[in-house]
Amino acid sequence: MWGGRFAGGPAAVMREINASISVDKRLWREDIAASKAHAAMLASEGILSPTDAIAIDRGLDTVADEIEAGKLVEDPALEDIHMHVEHRLSELIGDAAGRLHTARSRNDQVATDFRLFVRRCADETICGLDRLELALVDRAEQHAGTVMPGFTHLQSGQPVTLGHHLLAYREMLVRDRSRFADARRRMNENPLGSAALAGTGFDLDRDATTKALGFDRPTANSLDAVSDRDFVVDYLHAAALCSVHLSRLAEEIILWASQPFGFVKLPDAWSTGSSIMPNKRNPDAAELVRGHAARIIGDLVAMLVLLKGLPLAYAKDLQDDKPPLFDAHDLLALSLAAMAGMVADLEFVPARMRAAAAAGHATATDLADWLVSEARVPFREAHHIAGRAVAAAEGEGKALDELGLDRLTAIDPRIDERVLPRLSVEASVAARRSAGGTAPDRVMQVIAAIRADIAAREA
Amino acid sequence: MWGGRFAGGPAAVMREINASISVDKRLWREDIAASKAHAAMLASEGILSPTDAIAIDRGLDTVADEIEAGKLVEDPALEDIHMHVEHRLSELIGDAAGRLHTARSRNDQVATDFRLFVRRCADETICGLDRLELALVDRAEQHAGTVMPGFTHLQSGQPVTLGHHLLAYREMLVRDRSRFADARRRMNENPLGSAALAGTGFDLDRDATTKALGFDRPTANSLDAVSDRDFVVDYLHAAALCSVHLSRLAEEIILWASQPFGFVKLPDAWSTGSSIMPNKRNPDAAELVRGHAARIIGDLVAMLVLLKGLPLAYAKDLQDDKPPLFDAHDLLALSLAAMAGMVADLEFVPARMRAAAAAGHATATDLADWLVSEARVPFREAHHIAGRAVAAAEGEGKALDELGLDRLTAIDPRIDERVLPRLSVEASVAARRSAGGTAPDRVMQVIAAIRADIAAREA
Amino acid sequence: MWGGRFAGGPAAVMREINASISVDKRLWREDIAASKAHAAMLASEGILSPTDAIAIDRGLDTVADEIEAGKLVEDPALEDIHMHVEHRLSELIGDAAGRLHTARSRNDQVATDFRLFVRRCADETICGLDRLELALVDRAEQHAGTVMPGFTHLQSGQPVTLGHHLLAYREMLVRDRSRFADARRRMNENPLGSAALAGTGFDLDRDATTKALGFDRPTANSLDAVSDRDFVVDYLHAAALCSVHLSRLAEEIILWASQPFGFVKLPDAWSTGSSIMPNKRNPDAAELVRGHAARIIGDLVAMLVLLKGLPLAYAKDLQDDKPPLFDAHDLLALSLAAMAGMVADLEFVPARMRAAAAAGHATATDLADWLVSEARVPFREAHHIAGRAVAAAEGEGKALDELGLDRLTAIDPRIDERVLPRLSVEASVAARRSAGGTAPDRVMQVIAAIRADIAAREA
Amino acid sequence: MWGGRFAGGPAAVMREINASISVDKRLWREDIAASKAHAAMLASEGILSPTDAIAIDRGLDTVADEIEAGKLVEDPALEDIHMHVEHRLSELIGDAAGRLHTARSRNDQVATDFRLFVRRCADETICGLDRLELALVDRAEQHAGTVMPGFTHLQSGQPVTLGHHLLAYREMLVRDRSRFADARRRMNENPLGSAALAGTGFDLDRDATTKALGFDRPTANSLDAVSDRDFVVDYLHAAALCSVHLSRLAEEIILWASQPFGFVKLPDAWSTGSSIMPNKRNPDAAELVRGHAARIIGDLVAMLVLLKGLPLAYAKDLQDDKPPLFDAHDLLALSLAAMAGMVADLEFVPARMRAAAAAGHATATDLADWLVSEARVPFREAHHIAGRAVAAAEGEGKALDELGLDRLTAIDPRIDERVLPRLSVEASVAARRSAGGTAPDRVMQVIAAIRADIAAREA
Repeated sequence: MWGGRFAGGPAAVMREINASISVDKRLWREDIAASKAHAAMLASEGILSPTDAIAIDRGLDTVADEIEAGKLVEDPALEDIHMHVEHRLSELIGDAAGRLHTARSRNDQVATDFRLFVRRCADETICGLDRLELALVDRAEQHAGTVMPGFTHLQSGQPVTLGHHLLAYREMLVRDRSRFADARRRMNENPLGSAALAGTGFDLDRDATTKALGFDRPTANSLDAVSDRDFVVDYLHAAALCSVHLSRLAEEIILWASQPFGFVKLPDAWSTGSSIMPNKRNPDAAELVRGHAARIIGDLVAMLVLLKGLPLAYAKDLQDDKPPLFDAHDLLALSLAAMAGMVADLEFVPARMRAAAAAGHATATDLADWLVSEARVPFREAHHIAGRAVAAAEGEGKALDELGLDRLTAIDPRIDERVLPRLSVEASVAARRSAGGTAPDRVMQVIAAIRADIAAREA
Repeated sequence: MWGGRFAGGPAAVMREINASISVDKRLWREDIAASKAHAAMLASEGILSPTDAIAIDRGLDTVADEIEAGKLVEDPALEDIHMHVEHRLSELIGDAAGRLHTARSRNDQVATDFRLFVRRCADETICGLDRLELALVDRAEQHAGTVMPGFTHLQSGQPVTLGHHLLAYREMLVRDRSRFADARRRMNENPLGSAALAGTGFDLDRDATTKALGFDRPTANSLDAVSDRDFVVDYLHAAALCSVHLSRLAEEIILWASQPFGFVKLPDAWSTGSSIMPNKRNPDAAELVRGHAARIIGDLVAMLVLLKGLPLAYAKDLQDDKPPLFDAHDLLALSLAAMAGMVADLEFVPARMRAAAAAGHATATDLADWLVSEARVPFREAHHIAGRAVAAAEGEGKALDELGLDRLTAIDPRIDERVLPRLSVEASVAARRSAGGTAPDRVMQVIAAIRADIAAREA
Repeated sequence: MWGGRFAGGPAAVMREINASISVDKRLWREDIAASKAHAAMLASEGILSPTDAIAIDRGLDTVADEIEAGKLVEDPALEDIHMHVEHRLSELIGDAAGRLHTARSRNDQVATDFRLFVRRCADETICGLDRLELALVDRAEQHAGTVMPGFTHLQSGQPVTLGHHLLAYREMLVRDRSRFADARRRMNENPLGSAALAGTGFDLDRDATTKALGFDRPTANSLDAVSDRDFVVDYLHAAALCSVHLSRLAEEIILWASQPFGFVKLPDAWSTGSSIMPNKRNPDAAELVRGHAARIIGDLVAMLVLLKGLPLAYAKDLQDDKPPLFDAHDLLALSLAAMAGMVADLEFVPARMRAAAAAGHATATDLADWLVSEARVPFREAHHIAGRAVAAAEGEGKALDELGLDRLTAIDPRIDERVLPRLSVEASVAARRSAGGTAPDRVMQVIAAIRADIAAREA
Repeated sequence: MWGGRFAGGPAAVMREINASISVDKRLWREDIAASKAHAAMLASEGILSPTDAIAIDRGLDTVADEIEAGKLVEDPALEDIHMHVEHRLSELIGDAAGRLHTARSRNDQVATDFRLFVRRCADETICGLDRLELALVDRAEQHAGTVMPGFTHLQSGQPVTLGHHLLAYREMLVRDRSRFADARRRMNENPLGSAALAGTGFDLDRDATTKALGFDRPTANSLDAVSDRDFVVDYLHAAALCSVHLSRLAEEIILWASQPFGFVKLPDAWSTGSSIMPNKRNPDAAELVRGHAARIIGDLVAMLVLLKGLPLAYAKDLQDDKPPLFDAHDLLALSLAAMAGMVADLEFVPARMRAAAAAGHATATDLADWLVSEARVPFREAHHIAGRAVAAAEGEGKALDELGLDRLTAIDPRIDERVLPRLSVEASVAARRSAGGTAPDRVMQVIAAIRADIAAREA
């Protein structure tokens, strides 16, 4: 397609390193959609005759049908999906195919195709987030009152409710959704009409292709439009951070499923065994979600490094933009689906959770808080008193609420019997009624609000 | 501050690895602001007496004055800025200081402080972006009609205008600004009141501290609030991509300043010499901007990796969130300032640019486009004809517009004399009047729109 | 294969996320080799009967032939290459196949297979390095005396020879080779016999499988052996740094091929054109080499992040070790081949190089050095004098050796006519005869030594 | 120092971005050592007079004493440590100082200084590794027979011994040591004499400075020597992977210290408490070690990205090589020291470990292995039988060795009473006597070999 000036052909290795069809064929839908929009616009501007425009449009439909049916024949000499489509079109409709590339370059063509593709990735990911959100909310509702240890530093800190814990991940997903939405909004500009790098002398109607392809507006600068890949980085950033959130949840599932924790049982549907150890029931899906986050971070790095230091405008380095995006999107889609399935199917073991919550003197803060509220002790001093109570309980191998009032008043005489009912884990979670706190009724309020929000979104 | 339960003190290495005061002292303003808001809210809720509240408020002002005056005494035993401030407060006002930490933990305290800090970083960066934008627009206006080669693959492709080229970077900055604004909006939630991880039983008014600290709303889930560092990643993502843009511009300045290009002269103010080679005038600032992008990418990676796989809620790993953020922010601020200075002061050499634009047969596309428009040749065929014209010109060592009509018509008889005026670089840029194209009058239109936008923003 | 304890089957998404056959089938040769070695050892230890051993060995040969012939049928239910091979073996030889997995787990099996694979990658990469080294040395020999500008900060600093410049890359390749050799040496240990994680109670001869598979020694600790992926990181580190070297060379080829430099012409075999601009001749292969470095860096990051924080021993996260390794190895192999081809075929343009070397007052250091040597001026002062000479030459638009003796002695009276012959670029390079310097005869000495080294390596 | 050609001074931002003294002052020892070696060599070659050489040598000693005493006055106008030292030298000894920079450039000077520094970092790190190795071996010896669960997928797989588990980390450290040693060997070449980029015309004895500075040989190519930073990447790679190993161990300590595991008690010396929760005892040091790995990975990324795509020779981007190296080295040194302290001081709880080892039917593999050895059942079938035994035990809420012979023979009649003693965790670990296996006597053998190796190294 650029032979006019060239005498010799490419070296074999050159052909191999240069061809991208095995990768960029995934853009075929977008390539055809953009070509159809371009042709229609050229026709309405009188640059293409109606006859040619109709031939091109129908021909592209045929090409689409063929590719859909698995009939794309990859030919490295045709380099990329753009040339494969155009070449097949010319086989189908002859010379008119040669007019399609008027006022267009592969530079703005691929920029357009790829934006359309990444936009679709963002939309699909948002759907995946919605599904996982729903799974979390459903389980949170079932366990709004289930008490479990709240850890900091993986040490039992204060009791929390499982519902509250699951909803923490829902908050992360809300931010993820907002991040993909921001990325989508920022990327939704139409590069078509930027041509190679400088714009074109043909009298184009860029608003027409913008509208046809669902973009919000045309890109403002042709040099930027053909060399910008910010939208890929934005997607990968959102994907990397989302995968980190999933990795955090996966880490917890792995911990909870371990024998020492025993907070959950993994159903057979989400477990695997061992080729040597007949006793194993492994949380493979959770581990793979955790592993995939590493790869998605690697994809983000690849893309940032690719762009760093490239002068304007298009450089062939940019051909390496697709493998990281495809890889990250596929891994994230699978991770979201696996996590939604696991969350829905996990069998929680409330008894183990409650027992663990009661260990570790987790209501010591309640003792300190009581001293502040009821005995007007400054918090720092109250903290110190409660610390001594913990040391005493630890020394006697007892829980804090088993220590007895005598021992407590011996530690500080301002303690009285009113404190005792405050030292159970149930009382502790029930007390934490501040906005955003773990109290069961707070959790149910939050769930109601989320359900209303979901309903509003769906309406 | 947590000694009630502890008998032995920390090991020396433990103290060294654990203390963060040398790093997090940069949060002192935010720490004091958040404590003041917290104390005022406790007082209005009746949890703190008016007397204590006033003592705390005045005491914190004194501490602020002391730190401002450089009187902070770092003590590793006091670990972090929160304990330094509280400890000094207790020296100043006695027991009342011990009541400040009521219904609060260092976990929600540092989450609040750090959000306030990163929010300020975002605001400052947006100012830096505005200044660089203005420098670019000013220079673009001066050079709206200056012709230079438009490169793809660093090969001369089509002539463009310098104004258009500079405005391509302005588009990147617009996206950067939007990215920082999105990050700011998403982070602007108030963690205060989440306490250690579970919320608190004290009857807090989280809306009051939210308002006092300029947040948009309280965070919704206490477990998430104390362990979330998405806002740092969002900032670092925006910073990394912004630094990549600056690195691209820096790369161009370095290329342009090289003797073979000679498109710009570096003023003394932005050059350095060599300790051995008396002839050198080096674009050090541009190289450092390019280098800084590498470090900021490293900072982003560090932060993502830090978070990956952490179970809820707070873990001490999170203490390592600050060095990457501080590093990236400082490097980006310096890079933006240096780039604004360089752009303002660069001495462009239009004659060199125009000469380079004319080389490389850069108007071959204009020949092909003319064949399409005037002779109704399909673009693919026109491209081939123009390719042969280039090969002919190359063979004779001539520019395309020096080849002569006879040679051109010999290549294809549909070419006639009307094409000749289209083959100059000035005609080429003037022709590319499509929206977003490089034509000088288009560039001036864009500049007018930008100036209006800037005026609107400032108003 | 682990069904004894399981009632329900995996969920569809679980099956999809869990199956690795589409990726790890690349290990089939290594898997069969390791199984053959394992079976032979089991037989010689009496754990396997001779009859079973022969059946297994022949059966594995048949499986190998089938896979070689493209007859592997992928079945996600069989998860990975290990199970595919064993399952096909059992179809071929029946029950005896079930004895092959004695005293073995997939954990030590995959660790063994993958080490064998990465070891082969290292060997292949070293061959690729050797070929590129030879191409560089050949071209360096042709251009041992070709003068070009030596840049620092992309500013002309001192003249150098092209041969010397090309050999700088040879030095990087020498380090790369050493890095791959170190990685190979460190990884060449045999995990087989570690079983799942704890070793085995069967009486194995690990030295026998070690010898059969070309390992240097058995791994020393079974827990480490099944969870160690350092060898992948070592390979990826060596690959990333090697790709960075190739990216540096690619950057230079791209610069040199630009019209303003014009130091090289790209042959058709290594160029591509544009779909819109008939005049283009793009250095796509060099740009792709530069881009591939970004992806390989991403692969290294993915692998490091994958491992960080994993407790012992094997975790399923480790299944994600293969995609980054395969990706990096393929990209590096292609980059090395493309670079060797480009280096061999590049058409250098000595006239353009020499002209550029003479620009920029690049012999100013020679003037300063002369003042030190011949007039005993302290270097700092000599540097200052030469700087003034440059300023004078620049002001008059002349080269340093065109400035004339009168102007020079006016700047400093200690300068005399002996300096004049020292100010040509040829004299400058000829003078730099210190070990490792750019003087043509030094370069030829180095080439002779390299050729001797290559001959010794091949012998 | 390069003012001869310059009229105006640098802009304020330029000065700020350009000055590196606040960072590179850490190189002062190396800078002075290299200058002393250079001066001595210049003198013995007759380039420097004996008088000047003595003055320079003594002057440099004085400068060293002053800096050691904290008297370095930082001046951004003097840019870097090289200029600070030379400037102070000239204040002390006058004109002779100006002769020191003969046949040298800051380019080879900093390359030399930094290699010396990184070499020292490697040496120090190896010492840190040795200390941690010793701590691990000591504890492994104490616990060669302590039974704990061996996990894969964090699921109890087979019993192992704690000694064996700790020694797995020792193997990682052995590889780390080898990696630092390789890096050290590869970097130990002397760039001095490469001058700015091209070598020098002065008649230097590079072997003399090589010997004086403890290098193995001079670098072979001047262009490479001044632009090579591979040695920094090699160090950072070794550091990143080492930190990943420490992060893995840290992860285990954090797990083990959690209440559900309870495998270790953290001594007060390595714990911290909470500002709000009086009951907390947090493994902060382990978490910080885990966090530091993230930052060191970020440092490695920064350095690779910095180098990617830089043309030869020196570019100012390289000034950004020091912060990542300093950061990584400091973090790694602290991590190694903290980990050595924690390992030495951890209080293991063998009873909890043994109880956990017995849970999870961890001797199911022993049952399967017995069927293979004693009943000649193919392993695949034996695995299935053992799986059914696990399912039965699980159904009855019993351990495998509590299931009783009747139940076992009902599952498979080939099982007989000889299997029963094989199903205890002690029997299980004792059986795994294959080389590299977990059996206590194997562990003791390995420890003896390690102690011999340590003794040999020290001798």
